[in-house]
Amino acid sequence: MASASSSAAMFGTAAASDGCSRRVFITTPVQVRASRSSPAFLRTSSRAIKTYASCSNSSVVNAALVTEAFAKVIDGKATAKTIREEIAAEISKMKESSGVVPGLAVILVGERKDSATYVRNKKKACESVGIKSYEVHLAEDCSEQEVLQHISAFNDDPAVNGILVQLPLPSHMNEQNILNAVCIDKDVDGFSPLNIGRLAMRDREPLFVPCTPKGCIELLHRYGVPIKGKRAVVIGRSNIVGMPASLLLQREDATVTVVHSRTKNPEAITREADIVITAVGQPNMVRGSWIKPGAVVIDVGINPVEDTSCSRGYRLVGDVCYEEASKIASAITPVPGGVGPMTIAMLLSNTLSAAKRSYNLE
Amino acid sequence: MASASSSAAMFGTAAASDGCSRRVFITTPVQVRASRSSPAFLRTSSRAIKTYASCSNSSVVNAALVTEAFAKVIDGKATAKTIREEIAAEISKMKESSGVVPGLAVILVGERKDSATYVRNKKKACESVGIKSYEVHLAEDCSEQEVLQHISAFNDDPAVNGILVQLPLPSHMNEQNILNAVCIDKDVDGFSPLNIGRLAMRDREPLFVPCTPKGCIELLHRYGVPIKGKRAVVIGRSNIVGMPASLLLQREDATVTVVHSRTKNPEAITREADIVITAVGQPNMVRGSWIKPGAVVIDVGINPVEDTSCSRGYRLVGDVCYEEASKIASAITPVPGGVGPMTIAMLLSNTLSAAKRSYNLE
Repeated sequence: MASASSSAAMFGTAAASDGCSRRVFITTPVQVRASRSSPAFLRTSSRAIKTYASCSNSSVVNAALVTEAFAKVIDGKATAKTIREEIAAEISKMKESSGVVPGLAVILVGERKDSATYVRNKKKACESVGIKSYEVHLAEDCSEQEVLQHISAFNDDPAVNGILVQLPLPSHMNEQNILNAVCIDKDVDGFSPLNIGRLAMRDREPLFVPCTPKGCIELLHRYGVPIKGKRAVVIGRSNIVGMPASLLLQREDATVTVVHSRTKNPEAITREADIVITAVGQPNMVRGSWIKPGAVVIDVGINPVEDTSCSRGYRLVGDVCYEEASKIASAITPVPGGVGPMTIAMLLSNTLSAAKRSYNLE
Repeated sequence: MASASSSAAMFGTAAASDGCSRRVFITTPVQVRASRSSPAFLRTSSRAIKTYASCSNSSVVNAALVTEAFAKVIDGKATAKTIREEIAAEISKMKESSGVVPGLAVILVGERKDSATYVRNKKKACESVGIKSYEVHLAEDCSEQEVLQHISAFNDDPAVNGILVQLPLPSHMNEQNILNAVCIDKDVDGFSPLNIGRLAMRDREPLFVPCTPKGCIELLHRYGVPIKGKRAVVIGRSNIVGMPASLLLQREDATVTVVHSRTKNPEAITREADIVITAVGQPNMVRGSWIKPGAVVIDVGINPVEDTSCSRGYRLVGDVCYEEASKIASAITPVPGGVGPMTIAMLLSNTLSAAKRSYNLE
């Protein structure tokens, strides 16, 4: 199990990851909700610095109090590093004993900068653990048929154990057709309906667990958070995070409620949960008052918000108002440095699993 | 929309279905929980007859009160009849305009009496609406290969639109292998992982919705029960009822919690629900105190309990203590005569859908 960072380390981590100051100390007038000013959750400090990440709509308290987090920080960056080291060690042994290494193929279509960055990061991560990466970069105006031909070739190539098609695809292509063409044994993203069906069913095993929700559960496991019999709320029901996260929690015997845009009184429902996973893409939507004291919060959201103090003019925040929630929760993931780094670690893990299955090394 | 029966009609229906007296009136000492004796939910009557279906573990009230249900009875028997008539009319038109009718094949292996009864009932139901039924009855000791050959023949037969393999299969056969052999377009049970995956995913459509949960939702629709934005609790997480029911409710924008054997305090969680669907197979497990006043209760359980007043020595009860819940809920399905008859109606509906798809008649 990875060790938890202190709250000081957390802020340090955040500062290192996004290049902006994340030290959240409060000037006057300070924004503190009444519910957050409970003495049980507050410590005071004389440091009074600029507020960077305050959540809006709070009631104003005229004090130069500085509130500090009580929650253990679930350090996804450190945990992902540990997992990558474990994977690297396993691949090294695999190479030694069988002469093979896992292979991951990525297909990139078009010139989107963000997509190119994601693909480069995946390639780098593969290299760092000993996974051989294969890349095909096609022009924006290439045909769907060309993409399908490359998928078919990777499907047939025994050295390729996982295939990723970087999304979004150009609008003239049928995304479902293309994703459906990836052989189920190499669909390391785990988004195929067949795989999701197996995830939902009690006596079936998915071939791959989708990377981001797998990363959330892995964090809970590595931080020793009990899941069985606990109330869990998943906020958001997307195919790639919320829905599979709810199925995973249920597989681990949590009592799961999925909160979504049509839910009435999401605050009261969320406040009943021992474990909260948020994946909605709404900066700071989940306030401290939504969190049950002592709950564990996994924040999947990565939302850019304007911040002129950052060289790039924005910084990244989660779906959860960290400053408030970290005073109520017993453990929480920061953004960045929480779930984000876990996603790519889980992709490497899925690729390794695919290779072990393919080479009968399980 | 089917009309609701009166509570008198409800008891009449029950009596007609299982051949036992279901008039639940109470002698002394009578079992009434304090929470149930609220004047708001009680009416008195001078009829004092034997208690047949009392739920255990209640506190005892020394009175010869007779409590009558306030809940509207969701009459599955009448609704299923209406649906079968609608299906029959559609098939009649189909035959007239295209010269084709849907076909359903059932494969029965072995000599289990209950399985034979189920198959006979399905065949009768098919005949009553104009679906042509095909039956293969194989010996208990036949090989898995033989079953697979019959499935393959039905897969290839364009006159067969749906294929059912009656479960359980003899223990020497691999059930998953056999079920996986049924072509997805003819899997009218809707239990294949690919189909369940599509049910779970927001932008996908399942080819078939599993019959029993589909019947539950159909009852809610036909009785005008709003689902969007409502709190729903599904008790039980089986692959064939609880899990797909929870996915269906979520597709209709309910906020769904799945309660199961590891759930702590299921009573309090269930009491928050506007809609409760139970599928656990525990007679009378859900008490009146579990139900939020005004909630709608769909009881999938069909449990035999000893009753010497019945000629066969037992009668059927649901997972819900009907006598208690019907005084709290605004609407409730009886057992028998609730969800049961809907399952076979939905099988006919799925077979019709398969035929329409196959003949491009949608």
